Amino acid sequence: MVNFSWTFLAAFLAVWAPSVTALWPQPQQITTGTTPLRLSPGFSIQLSNINGAPQDLRDAITRTKQYLQKDNLQILAPDRGASNAGAISKANTLSKLTLSLDGGTVTSISQEAVKPLESRVEGYSLSIPANGGEAVLSANTTLGLFRGLTTFGQLWYDWDGTTYTLEAPINIVDSPAYPYRGFMLDTARNYFPVSDILRVLDAMSWVKLNTFHWHVVDSQSFPLVVPGFEGISQKGAYSSAFTYSTSDVKNIVQYAAARGIDVIAEIDTPGHTSIIYTSYPEHVACPLATPWAQFANEPPAGQLRFASPATTNFTASLLTSASSLFSSQYFSTGGDELNINCYTQDTQTQQELAQQNKTLEQALDTFTQTTHGALREKGKTPVVWEEMALVHNVTLGNDTLIMVWISSQNVQAVAQKGFKVVHAASDYFYLDCGGGGWVGNYPAGNSWCDPFKTWQKAYTFNPTANLTEAQSKLIMGGEHLLWTEQSGPSNLDPIVWPRAATSAELWWSGAGGNVDTALPRLHDLSFRFLQRGVNTIPLQPLWCALRPGVCDLTA
Amino acid sequence: MVNFSWTFLAAFLAVWAPSVTALWPQPQQITTGTTPLRLSPGFSIQLSNINGAPQDLRDAITRTKQYLQKDNLQILAPDRGASNAGAISKANTLSKLTLSLDGGTVTSISQEAVKPLESRVEGYSLSIPANGGEAVLSANTTLGLFRGLTTFGQLWYDWDGTTYTLEAPINIVDSPAYPYRGFMLDTARNYFPVSDILRVLDAMSWVKLNTFHWHVVDSQSFPLVVPGFEGISQKGAYSSAFTYSTSDVKNIVQYAAARGIDVIAEIDTPGHTSIIYTSYPEHVACPLATPWAQFANEPPAGQLRFASPATTNFTASLLTSASSLFSSQYFSTGGDELNINCYTQDTQTQQELAQQNKTLEQALDTFTQTTHGALREKGKTPVVWEEMALVHNVTLGNDTLIMVWISSQNVQAVAQKGFKVVHAASDYFYLDCGGGGWVGNYPAGNSWCDPFKTWQKAYTFNPTANLTEAQSKLIMGGEHLLWTEQSGPSNLDPIVWPRAATSAELWWSGAGGNVDTALPRLHDLSFRFLQRGVNTIPLQPLWCALRPGVCDLTA
Repeated sequence: MVNFSWTFLAAFLAVWAPSVTALWPQPQQITTGTTPLRLSPGFSIQLSNINGAPQDLRDAITRTKQYLQKDNLQILAPDRGASNAGAISKANTLSKLTLSLDGGTVTSISQEAVKPLESRVEGYSLSIPANGGEAVLSANTTLGLFRGLTTFGQLWYDWDGTTYTLEAPINIVDSPAYPYRGFMLDTARNYFPVSDILRVLDAMSWVKLNTFHWHVVDSQSFPLVVPGFEGISQKGAYSSAFTYSTSDVKNIVQYAAARGIDVIAEIDTPGHTSIIYTSYPEHVACPLATPWAQFANEPPAGQLRFASPATTNFTASLLTSASSLFSSQYFSTGGDELNINCYTQDTQTQQELAQQNKTLEQALDTFTQTTHGALREKGKTPVVWEEMALVHNVTLGNDTLIMVWISSQNVQAVAQKGFKVVHAASDYFYLDCGGGGWVGNYPAGNSWCDPFKTWQKAYTFNPTANLTEAQSKLIMGGEHLLWTEQSGPSNLDPIVWPRAATSAELWWSGAGGNVDTALPRLHDLSFRFLQRGVNTIPLQPLWCALRPGVCDLTA
Repeated sequence: MVNFSWTFLAAFLAVWAPSVTALWPQPQQITTGTTPLRLSPGFSIQLSNINGAPQDLRDAITRTKQYLQKDNLQILAPDRGASNAGAISKANTLSKLTLSLDGGTVTSISQEAVKPLESRVEGYSLSIPANGGEAVLSANTTLGLFRGLTTFGQLWYDWDGTTYTLEAPINIVDSPAYPYRGFMLDTARNYFPVSDILRVLDAMSWVKLNTFHWHVVDSQSFPLVVPGFEGISQKGAYSSAFTYSTSDVKNIVQYAAARGIDVIAEIDTPGHTSIIYTSYPEHVACPLATPWAQFANEPPAGQLRFASPATTNFTASLLTSASSLFSSQYFSTGGDELNINCYTQDTQTQQELAQQNKTLEQALDTFTQTTHGALREKGKTPVVWEEMALVHNVTLGNDTLIMVWISSQNVQAVAQKGFKVVHAASDYFYLDCGGGGWVGNYPAGNSWCDPFKTWQKAYTFNPTANLTEAQSKLIMGGEHLLWTEQSGPSNLDPIVWPRAATSAELWWSGAGGNVDTALPRLHDLSFRFLQRGVNTIPLQPLWCALRPGVCDLTA
């Protein structure tokens, strides 16, 4: 028998240990002190030596001030900070944050956000003195300043209307480990209103994600209105209300760019295109063929007749027009899950191949070179799924971004071929896995990519496993992905957050994160997200969230 | 090579096949015709031969009419019913529904809803003629009329403002297979505002669930304000805002009863009571003891000192007071996951046992008989978790409801002992499983009850597997359960619906449901729930939902 007073005391001490700072993602370098500091009631954010500061930077400053006023984030402790009241009331005050741009010409966040991955400059340094006065945020670009503003907004807790930290002075030097830090949303299986996408973009920016991979169309629906091809969405969207007009897209692209996010749209070709048969039946092989499982990985079957020069030209024109809606340097042509049987059974395709004396693979090469060539004429770099590099014998430019989705085991093979890699593996980053299958008349009901991918699994992923140093340099970053067979506006937030934030830290801070120290910061993140209107799920009972470490497995 | 015209045609026919009626749960007996019928613009619901119709029945009629006006449920077809416009415009009109009470004295829905399970009468018959005029709903109780109203509200689709069916005449004779049809919500791991609970109750009533099992308190927090024991929630709720006042409880109980739902509250004892140490430290053994895994299945550790007469009397008084807040015939005293080591290590418990010359099991028997006796004095029947019947050697009344949660395999053993069983097995009905683990510093991150429990798994559950006919009669029904370590208001709806509806049909309609024919009806249910403000998840891409059967595995 033991006397329990010591165990009670131990738990009590853990309860009152100072909460970690609510930063997410963790900066590359940070030093903190132990001095309380509070924001002055008249706290201001000012621009220094920035002639003609762009409007998106000014707007970002306004948002940062709004968040500082409205987040009301209380520390992770049972008393939520009440016991800090005395220290806070006597603390020095910080009266302003000054933004300093160290580089040359001033370009907007929006312009910086859509530069090629390698030339995007997102680093910054932030210095907050313990004795109050002025904090300084420095960067070489407005995009870097924006990332620093995001960090600044996470440094503070609130008690009774006072915004404070207990950890001044704070000095941060920060920049991302990987240039591609994404999130993918499928808006074709089920539709999401523009307002949902804008909320996703806001949330992404809070964790410094910089790429919205928009899987906008697929076999089930075609909500994107493409100039010159309006008939596809007229007949292929779920309804006229379930479309993205050109002004919707412009709104989304601008909203994203102003938040440091590049929108990489995807029109998946030549597979995943069944719905185009409703407007251009001549371009689609095996439309709605049954049993669908012999013709496609998902119903409905139907793929572009890529062996046909007319279909190839149609696709090139479609991609050219669609890509012109986006300011990104990149555009994805998809290329996953091509079903060969669909073409074997398609009379027209077989006739085309015979006439051209080509194999199916040779025709696919022609199709890919033509469509990618059309994009390159518009200055775009193609993005494709892994099969284009590993399964099919097609010519790809060395700069093509290859998204590895089937398995993280396939990354090595792509890197060995010298291609740039985006991690998007189903075994780590598919948010839809483990929630049950969606095909009908299937009593077993499991999902193809069981089990559920926990935040811990993504967070502890090693992006350069089994790669040489040279191959490791081909890793551009990665993304969480939401395929929406069983998602819609009703569960968008809880299925995405906070899991997508965990890879955001992986790509920004680099590998090696510890789940134990991450968890309290994820709680802070969740409380902040909820306060800002994003419905993250709780990862623990509130009792545990307020007592970091006390609910650890071995605590 | 095949000609695709036939496959195209086949899919097209499937698309245009008439959608099934949007009933959930399926009635016991139903015959339908093929005549279009629409509701008259002046459609009314009238009471016949019901002297002094209770207010809750009148309110239910008002809600039914509101749903008929606002559901706007369109049929599952790509055109959502446009092609029915001609038939609808020429259809006969139904001008009124007459409610007829066949029984004797009129008691309210609320009074019927809280009767003992065996004496609750929920059956009804409904007759809708093809030639328009008057429909008739008959029942022996107001509760039966309420169930029939719920059915009536699900019989109609909407096109362009007209509420119609294509399946008149419709004749239904219906009653539930099982008297206990529940849903359990844990409001202790994370708190849910009253408004969330009311929304759950509404949704439950739409699928004829009749029991809200409210796991209101637990080791992590004690939000229930119990008269005479206010200190427990003052010190043990997460905050004063995160409590359920006596008026909140009254509101919830009345709201539920008016919707045919009995609220069975649970104060889990003697385990799962750690938080009581903050107000009554003398009654709690091993509070916050570490490592917690040696003292409890979850942090924080802490259990009532049931060997102490003082603690036993305290508990009996607490249960007596808490149970008086609820109009239910039933009250749950919990009894799961008792940790023996907590008592082995507790000096006071060991001294009490020695003084009384009792074993721990003997003391538990005394505690159980005393607390259950106190409840019985208030006219309540106890409800317990399975361990009380299978693990511990305690005296239980034959009428005690035993909830089997650890495994459905344990049902047989409980039935063999002659106890009444409520199915609540983690391997079928735990909504929280498969979403990842919540304990900290646990990189594997899986949940103890992996995998995710799909709707198909619950729907195809056999409630009387391996039971004799006599044992089968002990099955009262069952429930889906939501333990909320990783749930809060942000994900309540999507984690519960439509899965909890699938067991609702199992308990109402009986076993043997087919997942293939259920799926389109679940789509209708989801659309209806969304329209009524409950955030169900989509189970398929909209393309599939609008084409019943086309996305089946073998279609």
